[in-house]
Amino acid sequence: MTPYAAPVRDFRFVLEELLEHGSLGLPGFEETSPDLVEAVLEEAAKLAGDVWAPLNASGDRQGCTRRQDGSVSVPDGFIEAYCAYAEGGWNGIGVSEARGGQGLPEVVASSVQEMLHGANMALGLCPMLTAGAIEALAHHGSEAQQATYLPKLVEGTWTGTMNLTEPQAGSDLSKVRTRAVPCPEGEGDHYRLSGQKIYITWGEHDAAENILHLVLARTPDAPEGNRGISLFLVPKFLVNDDGSLGERNDVTCASIEHKLGIHGSPTCTLSFGENAGAIGYLVGEQGRGLNHMFTMMNEARHKVGVQGIGVAERACQHAFAYALDRVQGKRPAHRGGGECTISDHLDVRRMLLSMRARTDALRALALYCAAQLDVARHAAEESDRQAAQARAEVLIPVVKAFSTDQAVEIASLGVQVHGGMGFIEETGAAQLLRDARIAPIYEGTNGIQALDLAGRKLQRDGGRALGGLIDEVEGTARALYAAPGLSPLGEALAAGAADLTAALAVLLEQGSDPERGPDAIQAYATPFLSLAGHVLCAWQMGRAALAATAARQAGSEDPERPDPFYAAKLASADFAIRQWLPEGRAQRAVIEAGMESLVAFEPGAR
Amino acid sequence: MTPYAAPVRDFRFVLEELLEHGSLGLPGFEETSPDLVEAVLEEAAKLAGDVWAPLNASGDRQGCTRRQDGSVSVPDGFIEAYCAYAEGGWNGIGVSEARGGQGLPEVVASSVQEMLHGANMALGLCPMLTAGAIEALAHHGSEAQQATYLPKLVEGTWTGTMNLTEPQAGSDLSKVRTRAVPCPEGEGDHYRLSGQKIYITWGEHDAAENILHLVLARTPDAPEGNRGISLFLVPKFLVNDDGSLGERNDVTCASIEHKLGIHGSPTCTLSFGENAGAIGYLVGEQGRGLNHMFTMMNEARHKVGVQGIGVAERACQHAFAYALDRVQGKRPAHRGGGECTISDHLDVRRMLLSMRARTDALRALALYCAAQLDVARHAAEESDRQAAQARAEVLIPVVKAFSTDQAVEIASLGVQVHGGMGFIEETGAAQLLRDARIAPIYEGTNGIQALDLAGRKLQRDGGRALGGLIDEVEGTARALYAAPGLSPLGEALAAGAADLTAALAVLLEQGSDPERGPDAIQAYATPFLSLAGHVLCAWQMGRAALAATAARQAGSEDPERPDPFYAAKLASADFAIRQWLPEGRAQRAVIEAGMESLVAFEPGAR
Repeated sequence: MTPYAAPVRDFRFVLEELLEHGSLGLPGFEETSPDLVEAVLEEAAKLAGDVWAPLNASGDRQGCTRRQDGSVSVPDGFIEAYCAYAEGGWNGIGVSEARGGQGLPEVVASSVQEMLHGANMALGLCPMLTAGAIEALAHHGSEAQQATYLPKLVEGTWTGTMNLTEPQAGSDLSKVRTRAVPCPEGEGDHYRLSGQKIYITWGEHDAAENILHLVLARTPDAPEGNRGISLFLVPKFLVNDDGSLGERNDVTCASIEHKLGIHGSPTCTLSFGENAGAIGYLVGEQGRGLNHMFTMMNEARHKVGVQGIGVAERACQHAFAYALDRVQGKRPAHRGGGECTISDHLDVRRMLLSMRARTDALRALALYCAAQLDVARHAAEESDRQAAQARAEVLIPVVKAFSTDQAVEIASLGVQVHGGMGFIEETGAAQLLRDARIAPIYEGTNGIQALDLAGRKLQRDGGRALGGLIDEVEGTARALYAAPGLSPLGEALAAGAADLTAALAVLLEQGSDPERGPDAIQAYATPFLSLAGHVLCAWQMGRAALAATAARQAGSEDPERPDPFYAAKLASADFAIRQWLPEGRAQRAVIEAGMESLVAFEPGAR
Repeated sequence: MTPYAAPVRDFRFVLEELLEHGSLGLPGFEETSPDLVEAVLEEAAKLAGDVWAPLNASGDRQGCTRRQDGSVSVPDGFIEAYCAYAEGGWNGIGVSEARGGQGLPEVVASSVQEMLHGANMALGLCPMLTAGAIEALAHHGSEAQQATYLPKLVEGTWTGTMNLTEPQAGSDLSKVRTRAVPCPEGEGDHYRLSGQKIYITWGEHDAAENILHLVLARTPDAPEGNRGISLFLVPKFLVNDDGSLGERNDVTCASIEHKLGIHGSPTCTLSFGENAGAIGYLVGEQGRGLNHMFTMMNEARHKVGVQGIGVAERACQHAFAYALDRVQGKRPAHRGGGECTISDHLDVRRMLLSMRARTDALRALALYCAAQLDVARHAAEESDRQAAQARAEVLIPVVKAFSTDQAVEIASLGVQVHGGMGFIEETGAAQLLRDARIAPIYEGTNGIQALDLAGRKLQRDGGRALGGLIDEVEGTARALYAAPGLSPLGEALAAGAADLTAALAVLLEQGSDPERGPDAIQAYATPFLSLAGHVLCAWQMGRAALAATAARQAGSEDPERPDPFYAAKLASADFAIRQWLPEGRAQRAVIEAGMESLVAFEPGAR
């Protein structure tokens, strides 16, 4: 597999030249210097490239092993690589200093996460899940719980998991059956949990001293449905009052899954309470488990989007390296003739540029969303915080679903660039496709993301937050239109914005119908999210074109030897806006075709 | 894995109601009765469903094994399943009676092939390659070669392979280095071959008595490039004059590949002439090896397209079965409310209908193309034969590339429908995606197909054959427009035809530029093929809508209980034309964006 080189300059371009604030001007981070950010990115790039990336292929080949006693070992080298990460303090990079973290902005933390997932997605899942547990405890845990568990999670000496799914409860979590029975009065404040959870990422492993399971379960006499579900903390090893590890809790790994990809990440079925019942502690309020889980879900979803982008970036690097090396065929005479590498054939170059342009665009949008999260947390004015939070909440399902759908396509194109070699496992391109394929499924399927966007997120404010984003897209389109040489981009982007506005109107009108609204939202959700993703990504690339042009005009490059970085960004932007956006624009016609054929179709009739 | 049930009624719908001729009226097959065709399809469905399909998952898990002596064993049960196929006479189904085959039309043979690939793609590759060898020998072999080898190939007791690729010669076969040295005069008419071929499908195995390798190689003193390449027949076991098997030839399997999918199909590296040199016989003319190979390549490419459709059909069946069984969430109140299977959620239904509509459309186009091949072979008038041949040659790269690209997407959607289960290998959906992923790569990558269409096939007749097809699309659009209830389909289809016409004009104009033509063809080839595929598939579904409507009006169904088959075809047609075609239409804008960003992009610049 081609070595992974984290695209530090690309991150810096987005952070310093593309984000409105720059990474520096972000509220709450006025004192985070560009030098510090650069140093962090460079160090993370070393960890990703030198330590994590070399284990990606071997981890895939070896996979995880569950022993008879229920213990699970991860692939060779993973423990050491995880420890290098934890010891380097990377686990706390986005956690506030008050909680023992580095307190860096989300835009920087997201950049580092993308690198780590690009280097080794299976390993990257371990801290990703821990981050979810940190969020849950930080927001909903009691002070005592926070004192006992948070420092270890932030250090990374203990890891966390999220236990939602059960065989009968997947997208519909109201069907959760795992039971949590309170201790008899006077015997403590814990519960005894029993039940089975499936698809638990890093649910059991040997890379950390302890594992903290966050578990959705139902208390006795709780009402049916969502309101009967509470959130519990179930440590693998109970923690003594002095903080040392005590007894092994009654939770065991019943099996690990044999999966299409991410073989280095143990996906476990966990049995709670096969004996006395697993000891668990209520987190937050009883009956509010789903709400509490969704607090962290938003950020987890952003992270899955970022993960997709990491794999897409690696697929780009892999495909570019091959295409620049593989000699085959001849260059046309007017471009010099003679033998050439396949990167010189325009059909192959189309694949390469399509991969690169999309990856650039997805990254810019994901980091824009991360910046909104930073503003939402730290801006001085409440109204600024609320506006940024509203934008982030609209963007998160787009970042999750669109980035991961595109990542699968990008990884698949990467296979195609390799020709026959792409189908051979040793080449490595196929692994990226296999790994990427999970991301549209977990952390809420992409269909669920689309429903979250088209339903909850747009209906509740009548599309106001998205409308604000569309206004910005239109502003960028006008700026492009006015910029020398960029007016075709402005025209194309404006057309995309108009399509999104029209589709939004359909969705709001039909979606608010008291009777048929739910069907309309279901019917239009996926094409709408795709259209929004294309337009918002094209917007970011429009801004990239303006930034690259500005940099050139500012004389930061020798006109005799133009900086190839900015030339590449302009090529990416042109492709994204004029050749990729049209595919998204087609989704307006899909929405305008109405939902009748879907309603009329009976999948079961033969 | 869900059992596979060959969609016999769908094949009969295309053959009897959709093809202009009906399967019966095809020239040369006037006496092939509908009853015979039905019986053939029913029998093939049994072989596919009862014998081949149950081995699909186990074959994937077990894979092939190469022993130290170079012999290769295929998965358990594959030999028996192949023998059942050969003994049933299925190998000769499309071969003329004069050559010992069944002499059935290509439309019927293609239908049977789709079933077999849907049942077990890895096993289906074995006869697919044999069919290529039959074609090559039937067209270019000497009478003696035909007498010695053809009967065994047609029976299926011997199998065939195609040996093209070498490490340095993939898409560019002019780089072939394998050498073929003629015997000293007086010592026979054979050659001695030496060299290495890679990616040889079913290159070594234990399912047949003998294997006939068709090998591209270079003779001494032959000119460089394509014209120095000849085609040779290299049997695994030499054949004695009495037809019995003689000595083992000097060709060995050096390794088998570890691949993303089709694990049951041994993909071999073959070494020719490690000792005395492999004995080979010249097939056809010296220096015309590539031409001879391409004779059979056209049909092989059609077969790969059909193979993609087979996997797509199986992915549909798999996803439908799951979605109709999996209970999750609630139906909206106005559709009855209450718990429901996920097939009732319109977002899931969109995925299902998208899979079904595309599979229906691809099948109809592939069988239309097969019918053109039948007409091209058997029509009484030379002009009819030529016109059909020209259409088939334009359609074949579309059928190959578009069907296989879509098959990957359909299989990927199939994974998505399963949610978390889709990522678990035991479910079976992931295997279909892994298997499908090879089809866009082999038998000429889909990029090569697009170049074949946009370059050779369109430029040589100035787009005349494709123009004839577009005329037919327009005719169907007018008929739809005039039919009650179908006018929106007519409007959408006419718009698609207009886009294809406009894109064709760009391609012909810029493609004929003496200097920049080759670049223009490269730049526009892939979007053009995608546009053509969408429009031609939508055309077929327009014809399906007309046929389904006609069948309903002909009173062939009880108006109280409308035949769900026709209702499903109308839903498929509506979706294909109004919700799928728009995505293809976007490719016109892609082409009209020009090729400058591709030319300017330098993949190697950082």
